[in-house]
Amino acid sequence: MFTLFHHPFCPHSRFIRLIVGEYGLDLKLVEERAWERREAFLTLNPAGTTPVLATEDQPSVPGATVIAEYIDEAHGAAMGVKRLMPETIAERIEVRRLMAWFNEKFFEEVSHPLVTERIYKRFMSEENGGGPPSADVMRAAKANVRYHLAYIGWLAQTRNFLAGDRLTYADLAAAAHLSAIDYLGDVPWSEDEAAKAWYARVKSRPSFRPLLSEWLAGVPASRTYVDLDF
Amino acid sequence: MFTLFHHPFCPHSRFIRLIVGEYGLDLKLVEERAWERREAFLTLNPAGTTPVLATEDQPSVPGATVIAEYIDEAHGAAMGVKRLMPETIAERIEVRRLMAWFNEKFFEEVSHPLVTERIYKRFMSEENGGGPPSADVMRAAKANVRYHLAYIGWLAQTRNFLAGDRLTYADLAAAAHLSAIDYLGDVPWSEDEAAKAWYARVKSRPSFRPLLSEWLAGVPASRTYVDLDF
Repeated sequence: MFTLFHHPFCPHSRFIRLIVGEYGLDLKLVEERAWERREAFLTLNPAGTTPVLATEDQPSVPGATVIAEYIDEAHGAAMGVKRLMPETIAERIEVRRLMAWFNEKFFEEVSHPLVTERIYKRFMSEENGGGPPSADVMRAAKANVRYHLAYIGWLAQTRNFLAGDRLTYADLAAAAHLSAIDYLGDVPWSEDEAAKAWYARVKSRPSFRPLLSEWLAGVPASRTYVDLDF
Repeated sequence: MFTLFHHPFCPHSRFIRLIVGEYGLDLKLVEERAWERREAFLTLNPAGTTPVLATEDQPSVPGATVIAEYIDEAHGAAMGVKRLMPETIAERIEVRRLMAWFNEKFFEEVSHPLVTERIYKRFMSEENGGGPPSADVMRAAKANVRYHLAYIGWLAQTRNFLAGDRLTYADLAAAAHLSAIDYLGDVPWSEDEAAKAWYARVKSRPSFRPLLSEWLAGVPASRTYVDLDF
């Protein structure tokens, strides 16, 4: 049994939830508002960020990449053909490259600014940085999403899944970040048919269902968010 | 034989050079000014960032974390007691947590702003963001370095090395980022004796010598940079 300290709109937390869902592992969710810097949470992760995975037999595991590597080392081999991390060195390089692309680059340029401005700021006190969203920040992030979508489309046209023939961490990382901003209606799907078709396939997996069914009071999901055939 | 596309002041590139130095692997260095977005470099790493490791038998390996994991998978086991990544799951979690701490958090809050303002901007054209350093950005980064130094000191007092009893990737990541800003004289060593003693031990390793001997014309190193007994 795992416990995940997460936020429903934290893209990195969504990534871990998708992995755990694909593997069918038991998960208890605890919603954490990281910006409140709760003392017991800082003990679990001095960096003060979500997600953090608490396990029964290991120290707490903080951060999306560290958690993904941990789950692969502790449970990957037992998953057989469902394993989300390939076994050859060349394929592992490519999966890790794309994990970093989405968890670091896409996060910094797109999902973090949009989720912060449009969701987190609603809950933050003024001293924590709360307040109205910044139009400039949102405009820049919405411009960035377009080249990322084109890159996803290019990968999806070249390969069956983003890192190769099979579903890997790379697909789940990309889909996790996209899903958070898709809720907000900030993905211009019509611009890239290949990216859209790839996302429709990932989104229709059972591991995605819990994400699609969680709505935030006062912030309705975009028209296409739950539509598997958007 | 490895080829590393790097910049002498890129902290992530320094991290990889220290690993390769500890393992005694052959390395050819190619200086890359990532901000110039050279087309052949973007083919190696579409993210356009240093470091990138080119090998003889694998696709190019981009990014500090991906390279560190690749080197461990391809060469770690053969290094025996010199291996920089521990073997138990709990220890691997801690090493990866601290690698992320320095390669992401310290980089964002300290080493990236200071190196960008004080070094990179000298070489950048105006359209690439060149120009005089921003005093505000430098002031914020110099304030941040103090709490990071205290955290390193706390770890170094609790343990022999940052992640445990032995030298690991965690020490080399921390030392790599510190070394880049130590060149600039931006580490307030007198504030933390334990951090200073730990850094003196890491800095005196033979793997560190190549870093200490490279000086940048027009930007002299700080008084204590090459002094092993600073």
